[in-house]
Amino acid sequence: MMKLARLLPSRSQLSEKLLYGKAADVKDASQLYAFTSRAGISNARENSAAKGYIADRIFAPYSVYKGKAALSVTPVLPTFTKLDSGTLVVDRRGVMMMKFLPAIGERKYDNEKRQMFALSPTEVGSMISLGPKDSCEFFHDPSMLSSNAGQVRKSLTIKAHADGTGYLISLNVVNNILKTKEFFTVPVTTAEFAVMKTACSFALPHILGWDRLTNHPSREPRRTVGLPSKVDPQFLDLEWDK
Amino acid sequence: MMKLARLLPSRSQLSEKLLYGKAADVKDASQLYAFTSRAGISNARENSAAKGYIADRIFAPYSVYKGKAALSVTPVLPTFTKLDSGTLVVDRRGVMMMKFLPAIGERKYDNEKRQMFALSPTEVGSMISLGPKDSCEFFHDPSMLSSNAGQVRKSLTIKAHADGTGYLISLNVVNNILKTKEFFTVPVTTAEFAVMKTACSFALPHILGWDRLTNHPSREPRRTVGLPSKVDPQFLDLEWDK
Amino acid sequence: MMKLARLLPSRSQLSEKLLYGKAADVKDASQLYAFTSRAGISNARENSAAKGYIADRIFAPYSVYKGKAALSVTPVLPTFTKLDSGTLVVDRRGVMMMKFLPAIGERKYDNEKRQMFALSPTEVGSMISLGPKDSCEFFHDPSMLSSNAGQVRKSLTIKAHADGTGYLISLNVVNNILKTKEFFTVPVTTAEFAVMKTACSFALPHILGWDRLTNHPSREPRRTVGLPSKVDPQFLDLEWDK
Amino acid sequence: MMKLARLLPSRSQLSEKLLYGKAADVKDASQLYAFTSRAGISNARENSAAKGYIADRIFAPYSVYKGKAALSVTPVLPTFTKLDSGTLVVDRRGVMMMKFLPAIGERKYDNEKRQMFALSPTEVGSMISLGPKDSCEFFHDPSMLSSNAGQVRKSLTIKAHADGTGYLISLNVVNNILKTKEFFTVPVTTAEFAVMKTACSFALPHILGWDRLTNHPSREPRRTVGLPSKVDPQFLDLEWDK
Repeated sequence: MMKLARLLPSRSQLSEKLLYGKAADVKDASQLYAFTSRAGISNARENSAAKGYIADRIFAPYSVYKGKAALSVTPVLPTFTKLDSGTLVVDRRGVMMMKFLPAIGERKYDNEKRQMFALSPTEVGSMISLGPKDSCEFFHDPSMLSSNAGQVRKSLTIKAHADGTGYLISLNVVNNILKTKEFFTVPVTTAEFAVMKTACSFALPHILGWDRLTNHPSREPRRTVGLPSKVDPQFLDLEWDK
Repeated sequence: MMKLARLLPSRSQLSEKLLYGKAADVKDASQLYAFTSRAGISNARENSAAKGYIADRIFAPYSVYKGKAALSVTPVLPTFTKLDSGTLVVDRRGVMMMKFLPAIGERKYDNEKRQMFALSPTEVGSMISLGPKDSCEFFHDPSMLSSNAGQVRKSLTIKAHADGTGYLISLNVVNNILKTKEFFTVPVTTAEFAVMKTACSFALPHILGWDRLTNHPSREPRRTVGLPSKVDPQFLDLEWDK
Repeated sequence: MMKLARLLPSRSQLSEKLLYGKAADVKDASQLYAFTSRAGISNARENSAAKGYIADRIFAPYSVYKGKAALSVTPVLPTFTKLDSGTLVVDRRGVMMMKFLPAIGERKYDNEKRQMFALSPTEVGSMISLGPKDSCEFFHDPSMLSSNAGQVRKSLTIKAHADGTGYLISLNVVNNILKTKEFFTVPVTTAEFAVMKTACSFALPHILGWDRLTNHPSREPRRTVGLPSKVDPQFLDLEWDK
Repeated sequence: MMKLARLLPSRSQLSEKLLYGKAADVKDASQLYAFTSRAGISNARENSAAKGYIADRIFAPYSVYKGKAALSVTPVLPTFTKLDSGTLVVDRRGVMMMKFLPAIGERKYDNEKRQMFALSPTEVGSMISLGPKDSCEFFHDPSMLSSNAGQVRKSLTIKAHADGTGYLISLNVVNNILKTKEFFTVPVTTAEFAVMKTACSFALPHILGWDRLTNHPSREPRRTVGLPSKVDPQFLDLEWDK
């Protein structure tokens, strides 16, 4: 995982950068509507199909609220570009967005100080295959490939409790531009992690864009045909056609 | 689980309260159509879209009928509110509704004496991650946050048989207002529990509202575009466009 | 499983009976189009919506062809009845239909001598929870509750190979009316059984009718509303609405 | 697996042949648009519904890029034929298409030298049931049943790393017509394999065509009916209709 993340400019990290804006703008993220789950298809020449986008925004995260911080998880779908040939190509890969809010009182959390971490499909694969004693760690650089590369470093750790009763999920963000260090830690129970695994397993094909591959019953041919010669009648329940 | 349930006014418990009405009205629940599975989006200003609601009611529980009681399980979808901005927000979290009916004869069950228990997403996560030797217990107070808080106490227990051949699911309801105590117990086989786990795993993303995040093939851009510059041609099967 | 099946007129057995016709008609099953997967909603007053039915028939079984017999598996969806109130009620429970054809030569199978076995949702639960060393057996009486009860007995057995390399699926049909005994046996590999388990796990919520419970993005309110008072702004990403 | 593949002209191999063209044309595969995921229904009399096809092409593979080669996985849906009776029959079985590209530099891969391998549903079942220490191997002959049978041999191997940290996926293609031998090898991590397993488990019912069996809420009867006599009122929540 780590090796991959460091060698390749992973698409999810580019997404995360896009979502956050430039490193220097990290604190201005409030203008971004990045956390929405848009199913839209971007049109490179006309990106102002804003109305369509707005109607598609859905806020349905799975959230856990704990003593020091809250964590919410929500899928962000890929965007597609339609080529002149009609082919739809994944433009920006979907991610599983994890949002951390620090606690500022009893059951109060500071949304202004939130931090995001966008799990790529492979990182989701790592999470959903964690055994009850396993751990994993991911490193992201939201400024990767820009002049600020290396200035902001994020690491997400999922670590099993020694007694097997759940996991500790923590996010560490070191921002050398703003000279800040932030650390979030959220214990999740086995039950809460089971929801995350089940919901992320459900979401994984969607963030890959595979849910678009479904057979659509509505797309039917206009004419019907006789039994095609290449269908071996033996394989067919002929009584249907009697 | 228990700790969370006691510290936070869990949304599912508020839902359950809403579904049952006030504690004193528990026996009047027959007027409620709460057990339906509505996919509607509530409109805060106009809640009388009753026709739409009615058409959406579906009765398709998974039920097991045993000697002392029957148990049926059905998902109840979340409701959404649409903000002025167009964003859809989960209003009431979905739940997995468990309904218990006491037996009053051979293969006869008393629907008037039914009791409900609404599993939150996290409680569903607890159920679907139960191993063949595990048990779990949930506590709900349908009157939580009202003046009747603590007057009605419900607990649901799922306990593995010692021989690993299934589970005993039991519900205990103590109503200090009506001075009643009710106890239901339903043994479920491994096969029946497998249906519950599989069906609840299927339903979990739906009660979170994540099924709305699906990519919709029908939402296509009106214009097609050339190969966008940011797509690395190496990643694309260019022969498609030849 | 057996106990339940014997005490209760299980819906799936009634379905099977309906599918086969009366016991005496077992050999006339060729006129039946029971093996189709209809998603229709029956209308008790007007059952002749045959055209709609026909268009819905899909033939997409998962089949394995072996030396002595072939086995195909296909889901049959439940039918619904719409009450005056608008509520949809499951009328006939869905099943997983297993069809056996005896071999009559090299890669030739006799469709006229086929036998069916309709797995109920709970029997599907039993199948998908089989471990690599487990076995299960189901008993059906297609004439149950009729004057021919007990005249035709079917049993389906799924038995793990001793070496863990797959299962032997066999069907035994004893027809005391026709004085016939038929026996089918199909060895399935671990890979083939994995397809059956995965496909049946996918199909299980559908044969329960739970796929109808999906949130439909198209059902949206006509008016949008402001932030509802009961949504705690803390839980909401307010930047969306800035 | 191997036995089955050798005795029966498996539909997926025929598909693969169709996708590649004749054996002698293997190197001309660039004209083929076989890698698309078409959900169309072929019409035996009029196969030129090309426009519909084109709009359905989606490019959303899951890809891993490694030192010696890249591997991408994408589902290819089945095609259906509609009989005069209205029944839809699977015409060409869906497959999971695996594409290998050799590396020709740092993060550069040669699309012209790609090789495909189409996993049948049963081979997908084999892959998704692999344990952390297991291996499997599949043999395909794209020219099977033609005069070139045996001239091109392909074998795909999935082999667990000894330390349980992932798998080595390799493809071997021996083309006796072109006198070429090609060998691709791609190590995949446990996380990457988890994505493949989860995504392929999601796709399996789709490549079987079972996603068409879904209950469609839109198909509703035009009239509503009273409580049908065969529904046991005991099983129904009668309060809905009060």
